[in-house]
Amino acid sequence: MKHYDKKSFQHLEKLFRGNLINSCTGYKSANLIATKSKDGIENVAIINSVNHVGSNPPILSVLFRPTTVPRNTYKNIKETGLFTVNHITKDTISQAHHTAAKYDDDISEFDKTSFQPIYLNEFEAPYVKDSPIQIGCKYLNEYYIKENDTILVLAAIEHMYIKDGIESIDGWLDLQKAETVAVTGLDGYSLPTLLDRFAYARPNQKVESLLGKE
Amino acid sequence: MKHYDKKSFQHLEKLFRGNLINSCTGYKSANLIATKSKDGIENVAIINSVNHVGSNPPILSVLFRPTTVPRNTYKNIKETGLFTVNHITKDTISQAHHTAAKYDDDISEFDKTSFQPIYLNEFEAPYVKDSPIQIGCKYLNEYYIKENDTILVLAAIEHMYIKDGIESIDGWLDLQKAETVAVTGLDGYSLPTLLDRFAYARPNQKVESLLGKE
Repeated sequence: MKHYDKKSFQHLEKLFRGNLINSCTGYKSANLIATKSKDGIENVAIINSVNHVGSNPPILSVLFRPTTVPRNTYKNIKETGLFTVNHITKDTISQAHHTAAKYDDDISEFDKTSFQPIYLNEFEAPYVKDSPIQIGCKYLNEYYIKENDTILVLAAIEHMYIKDGIESIDGWLDLQKAETVAVTGLDGYSLPTLLDRFAYARPNQKVESLLGKE
Repeated sequence: MKHYDKKSFQHLEKLFRGNLINSCTGYKSANLIATKSKDGIENVAIINSVNHVGSNPPILSVLFRPTTVPRNTYKNIKETGLFTVNHITKDTISQAHHTAAKYDDDISEFDKTSFQPIYLNEFEAPYVKDSPIQIGCKYLNEYYIKENDTILVLAAIEHMYIKDGIESIDGWLDLQKAETVAVTGLDGYSLPTLLDRFAYARPNQKVESLLGKE
């Protein structure tokens, strides 16, 4: 096995270290965050740092590096309190990747990609049309991560739209049916295939599959 | 499309809501966190909340819900400052899921599963033997998330061990070759297949594949 230690990380070339460290924690979620500025300019950006925080109440987090492209996204969220999270699917990965390009503030990535905004139920941030799972979020709070100058935004999940055929009988979303992708590092896009779902784990009991039991 | 709003989330049955909200943000990382208590009891637990925070310096985060099973993990990290993160692969998903069972504090999940601890380079927390990507971490800080009583632990990546054949020439880890899995919700395990890797996105330039270019 190859071994890196603390000292050897410091001596790596910057892009190499970025690729290595960004991919070492495993697969990441692949979402488009869509917002609208107070001046009415729409924005859509790929974000790999959307994560589950809690179910009751429903809360998710997004980690922002203020110096990178999603800075418009962060600014719009602060201005309006609203944003949407939209799954990226296998047919849209190159368009989604392109939203990371540094366009000027007055340019909407909706005009530079095939993605289209759609407004639902009077929610003032746009959703990404045709995304199979669309989530409407409201800013709750943020935590400044002083260790590396990043910001963890917490948001309440206030709306969710799910394409037909994805939700299981017990609420679990079958992301394989959604064709949602996962991301490795900064630029790798993968399509997962479901291996199994397991029942709640109990001491000294064999792990049991949930598939084929519905 | 099916639509949930804030009010309808409140009225869902607890397990249904847990399945729905845990799976709506997309694929999650699948790792085993291994620790050793100050009394020398080893612990290994599946965690889906390990995330990338930054590359320079290399930092990752783990979100802990103090009332759930990884409480021993959190206690050991606080006591010793050390833990390891180890990728879960397709052949070990049922064993990994079983580490979530609520065993008593004095029982090591290493004794209840096929996983074996291994100690490397005098690092005092055990790694999970045969995991293709093993990361040695040191506690840096924690942020109490008051919105739902969770704790975000930040840790420095101090060691990384990578199985031969996984690291690309530019540092990117090919998790498909590692057979690392991804998790949906609380209990779904998937094996991703790489679709593509793309070059850095630039305004008004077509997205370019990096595959086959090395």
